[in-house]
Amino acid sequence: MKALVYHGPGQKSWEDVPPAAIQEPTDVVVRVDTTTICGTDLHILHGDVAAVTDGRILGHEAVGTVTEVGDAVKGFAVGDRVLVPAITKCGRCEYCQQGMPSHCQTVGGIGWIFGHLIDGTQAESVRVPYADTSLYPVPANVTNEQAIFLADSLPTGYEVGVLAGQVRPGDTVAVVGAGAVGLSAILTTGLWGAARVIAIDTNKFRLDKALEFGATDVVEAGPGVADEVRALTDGQGVDVAIEAVGYPETLLTTAALVRPGGTIANIGVHGVPVELPMHEMWIQNVTLTMGLVDTASIPTLLKMVASGRIPAEKMGTHTFTFDQMDEAYDVFKNAAENSALKVVITPA
Amino acid sequence: MKALVYHGPGQKSWEDVPPAAIQEPTDVVVRVDTTTICGTDLHILHGDVAAVTDGRILGHEAVGTVTEVGDAVKGFAVGDRVLVPAITKCGRCEYCQQGMPSHCQTVGGIGWIFGHLIDGTQAESVRVPYADTSLYPVPANVTNEQAIFLADSLPTGYEVGVLAGQVRPGDTVAVVGAGAVGLSAILTTGLWGAARVIAIDTNKFRLDKALEFGATDVVEAGPGVADEVRALTDGQGVDVAIEAVGYPETLLTTAALVRPGGTIANIGVHGVPVELPMHEMWIQNVTLTMGLVDTASIPTLLKMVASGRIPAEKMGTHTFTFDQMDEAYDVFKNAAENSALKVVITPA
Amino acid sequence: MKALVYHGPGQKSWEDVPPAAIQEPTDVVVRVDTTTICGTDLHILHGDVAAVTDGRILGHEAVGTVTEVGDAVKGFAVGDRVLVPAITKCGRCEYCQQGMPSHCQTVGGIGWIFGHLIDGTQAESVRVPYADTSLYPVPANVTNEQAIFLADSLPTGYEVGVLAGQVRPGDTVAVVGAGAVGLSAILTTGLWGAARVIAIDTNKFRLDKALEFGATDVVEAGPGVADEVRALTDGQGVDVAIEAVGYPETLLTTAALVRPGGTIANIGVHGVPVELPMHEMWIQNVTLTMGLVDTASIPTLLKMVASGRIPAEKMGTHTFTFDQMDEAYDVFKNAAENSALKVVITPA
Amino acid sequence: MKALVYHGPGQKSWEDVPPAAIQEPTDVVVRVDTTTICGTDLHILHGDVAAVTDGRILGHEAVGTVTEVGDAVKGFAVGDRVLVPAITKCGRCEYCQQGMPSHCQTVGGIGWIFGHLIDGTQAESVRVPYADTSLYPVPANVTNEQAIFLADSLPTGYEVGVLAGQVRPGDTVAVVGAGAVGLSAILTTGLWGAARVIAIDTNKFRLDKALEFGATDVVEAGPGVADEVRALTDGQGVDVAIEAVGYPETLLTTAALVRPGGTIANIGVHGVPVELPMHEMWIQNVTLTMGLVDTASIPTLLKMVASGRIPAEKMGTHTFTFDQMDEAYDVFKNAAENSALKVVITPA
Repeated sequence: MKALVYHGPGQKSWEDVPPAAIQEPTDVVVRVDTTTICGTDLHILHGDVAAVTDGRILGHEAVGTVTEVGDAVKGFAVGDRVLVPAITKCGRCEYCQQGMPSHCQTVGGIGWIFGHLIDGTQAESVRVPYADTSLYPVPANVTNEQAIFLADSLPTGYEVGVLAGQVRPGDTVAVVGAGAVGLSAILTTGLWGAARVIAIDTNKFRLDKALEFGATDVVEAGPGVADEVRALTDGQGVDVAIEAVGYPETLLTTAALVRPGGTIANIGVHGVPVELPMHEMWIQNVTLTMGLVDTASIPTLLKMVASGRIPAEKMGTHTFTFDQMDEAYDVFKNAAENSALKVVITPA
Repeated sequence: MKALVYHGPGQKSWEDVPPAAIQEPTDVVVRVDTTTICGTDLHILHGDVAAVTDGRILGHEAVGTVTEVGDAVKGFAVGDRVLVPAITKCGRCEYCQQGMPSHCQTVGGIGWIFGHLIDGTQAESVRVPYADTSLYPVPANVTNEQAIFLADSLPTGYEVGVLAGQVRPGDTVAVVGAGAVGLSAILTTGLWGAARVIAIDTNKFRLDKALEFGATDVVEAGPGVADEVRALTDGQGVDVAIEAVGYPETLLTTAALVRPGGTIANIGVHGVPVELPMHEMWIQNVTLTMGLVDTASIPTLLKMVASGRIPAEKMGTHTFTFDQMDEAYDVFKNAAENSALKVVITPA
Repeated sequence: MKALVYHGPGQKSWEDVPPAAIQEPTDVVVRVDTTTICGTDLHILHGDVAAVTDGRILGHEAVGTVTEVGDAVKGFAVGDRVLVPAITKCGRCEYCQQGMPSHCQTVGGIGWIFGHLIDGTQAESVRVPYADTSLYPVPANVTNEQAIFLADSLPTGYEVGVLAGQVRPGDTVAVVGAGAVGLSAILTTGLWGAARVIAIDTNKFRLDKALEFGATDVVEAGPGVADEVRALTDGQGVDVAIEAVGYPETLLTTAALVRPGGTIANIGVHGVPVELPMHEMWIQNVTLTMGLVDTASIPTLLKMVASGRIPAEKMGTHTFTFDQMDEAYDVFKNAAENSALKVVITPA
Repeated sequence: MKALVYHGPGQKSWEDVPPAAIQEPTDVVVRVDTTTICGTDLHILHGDVAAVTDGRILGHEAVGTVTEVGDAVKGFAVGDRVLVPAITKCGRCEYCQQGMPSHCQTVGGIGWIFGHLIDGTQAESVRVPYADTSLYPVPANVTNEQAIFLADSLPTGYEVGVLAGQVRPGDTVAVVGAGAVGLSAILTTGLWGAARVIAIDTNKFRLDKALEFGATDVVEAGPGVADEVRALTDGQGVDVAIEAVGYPETLLTTAALVRPGGTIANIGVHGVPVELPMHEMWIQNVTLTMGLVDTASIPTLLKMVASGRIPAEKMGTHTFTFDQMDEAYDVFKNAAENSALKVVITPA
């Protein structure tokens, strides 16, 4: 079959590889009908993720069709349309039993294994371990172009931003960074009844998208942002401030927006330490959360998409086929400049 | 001043009474600019509430203007536009400190005292005890015709239905009875991300309103309702079933709709015992909740109305002036027949 | 092998049966080193559980040693000392994913299948389906005589009583019925910081045990019990009232003990409907919970036993061997008269 | 009357001042029967708290007797024995209504005003504002020597450590720093069912006290502490790590002890920023909490002391009279060296 193979920093190719196959009785094989690219894939190509080595098939998001089923698999059959999420769940380790498969202990102590520790989803087919506890059936009235964003970006914005941030009815929420993940947070703040949602970014296209995704206010990023946000609130700051960028300065900006008793939910992937003003923050009764997505919210999000209450398809701005994989990466790599959020990639 | 005075079962009159006045340093006096009628007022007129005696001014909902302020009151000043909620909160008894002023211990062991244990709000003015902890300022962009429904019916549907029922994102909710309180529950299910909301009633007007208030499905009440609801869900029943009527048969219907692990939230005021099928229910891991409103959700609801996310004004279907008080009661008494939900009553 | 086989109401015998064996790749076989008898086993013998048919091996609690392992089982190996809980968890159905395996959908829509829908644990060996998600390893410093009570009775008192009742630090808790399950609730109220625990029973031996298990007060059951409990509290009643008997009168007594805002946690298995005074209760802001155990608390309880903070071994008052099975049943059937709580049954 | 008056950095004296008196109708005056010294008082004397100016009476903890009552006070009468907590609660501002009086907006935007923004409790009498919502009656079976530690240190360890850290039954908890506040956390971990509690300090006396207060393990602070703690757990770290010191290095040590999904609860008062390894932490799904005490847990703690389940009196290691105030400060200033935890100070 064909797949996108990593060959060291800056090197990838859409090339022939042996077909995906069952290895364990709990595996299935899924033919990939739709996939996409994640910011993490770009980090890998930059050589930032040492665990990804030459020969690895990239990608950790897919919607597809089951083509082969292991002997112990009970919940899925050949022909089922399924969502392959970024996180694989063994279902039996302590973390999986506690609902935190992000730290599943069975492969490398992390739930994100596709396109990282095992071959991934940017391929014609993919082997899915622990299929019974990892895959989700896609309801008939949810399209592939909606479901694909539930593999990673929507759950990440929702779980690591909205859920961890403990958004509650009546809250005012600020989201720093309106890329795909920040917009996913904005799109799902309504599930917990946010009254006001303030989007902050430097990019005009993204701020426009933020309004379309449910923000009530937008603020251009800059030195005066904390004052502007306080002016928009009652002078006290927001209830929940969500960081969706991953730099020290953006985290410090986010922290400066929150009122006493509020929550700072960090979604950003950080590359360096952050000097936190604990001498000012200790007395503010604030909470700082962070983490990798569990994708445990997928059943909830599927119901919301199925009932028409979350327009997940809005995340997909550009469409490509497998043989345009390089072009898809190029567009996504410069998403803001290309007025792109997420790309949709299909076989033909 | 003029006020609506109760004179025993079936007897009331809009008549001259001594003006409302400060009695304690924690009191304020509020000029009533808008009031309404509650189902409980009808119960009182039927003679069902023994604690209400001849001479009591009726009513427990108002929006008005502060005209006099006690010496110990710090949070309100003459001229402030305020919401007078159904529940008075002393702020210091054990129940108030725990956030449950419905059972405030300072007057008769109950938080509902207006038009019950002290004079009420269907009057030109009303004395408000414990003003600092009981009143709410009305934001500039919230009208009297919106705020008045936050005095009782919206918080009741929200707190005793949606909050007690623990509606969560993705849930399917059934509401039995689509009168003012049932519709209040329907209108606020979205604050907690309900995916589907099924309204059940015998009245066509109310089912139409239910769709307008956010229901996704309606079912005509009748012997087959449980089967119809199961057909609308996955055969397992709903996550949360809300009872907003108050009869044994409606509670049993509601209980029959819920899936294992779900919640039955009773809002209805019951007049007789209910024989519950505990021999079938004990194994279902269901929860049954019930109670009087605390009105503690008013700040949240005010924010949602102010941000345009809850159209509270939709509850008001008919408007009257003080001197049409009898007509207002007649219309509300036969609400379903009159295509009425709640009435809005103003000075002139 | 030998096993206790059910032969219709009132009929059971310890007899030769085919040995337990692997049927599915997710099964293991466990040699039973310790088992016990549950009140449900008595119900079955009375013919109350229609699903249990002639030829079924009884019992749903065991501690044992793994002797055979299916191909798909990763978490357990031959020789492991394991706890076989009352509830089997497939790990993939909607209820298991939500942490409610009591309603696991894979076999008959219920998680309790041992000694009910498949052969049980009162036998020399037992086949355990879905072993990876159902079994628990027993820590080295927890004995078989401690662990056996974590298979059902301790989790039932804890989950359906203490957890569902939402006991919180400082609470006063009443437990109606101080048999094995009521005592399990009493023993675990301390995990959530109960300040006072009032045990209510007719039996002197059980009330003495209650004090030994952590009750601070005991009240003899009778018509004045609600008054006595109010006298022990501040006149308002308890925060959490737990029913551990299963009759209409005991549930009504329990409901009468609770303060406004409190919780009535029903553990009792009811055989008939219960007429609940909803005309008095609706205004009390109380919550009524009920359900079958999930055994999801076993990891927590194992840690508490391992650290010496829960003396689970106190539940075992009598010890028998497999060939004394009839005698064990006779003692347990008349537990109160025999000053018995739970029996411990071992091979020899 | 006599009081301890601050006269600038390093300067204090027990001297004559005008007697405490009612200023507002919501005030009471309390004769101080027992007071104590807090680490914050030492910070003030070092000149670290700019808001405390020359002439201010120090202290924010007292047990005493009501001697005068304002006109609007309903809940307290002359002669009542009361606990004066560190935090004053107006009861009506947004933060007080949300249960967070630490940020009460009525005086300086902070709930800690005694010995800070108004005169304090290290005096023969003290004026208490908002008495109805701020004071607590002391139950008959709780002594002054127990109650005094519920004014600040026990609620701080409990709320900012145990509650914010979300200790749950079965958890392993590490406490870095076993001074008065760290020991308060240790003493109250049992209210939420901690299975194991590991105390970490450099001081032998404090580690011995930790065992006496409920720690199951002690580890001497030093470079190998993270490895030692991992060896005591299953290699993954603790569920909740509590910081009770207030330096960058102790917070970083604390953060290094926690397992994925765990909570770092910072109680320490920090004087400088802390460089947090966000590049390693972002993926760990950890939560960092911090804040000033609300003292909202006092009713719970009073019940636990009254029922004999929390031996609060163990916090008091040394006793002084008012005229030994200087000596009391000297002992407390060098608490570890003096084998002191908290001092008890009484009139004579």
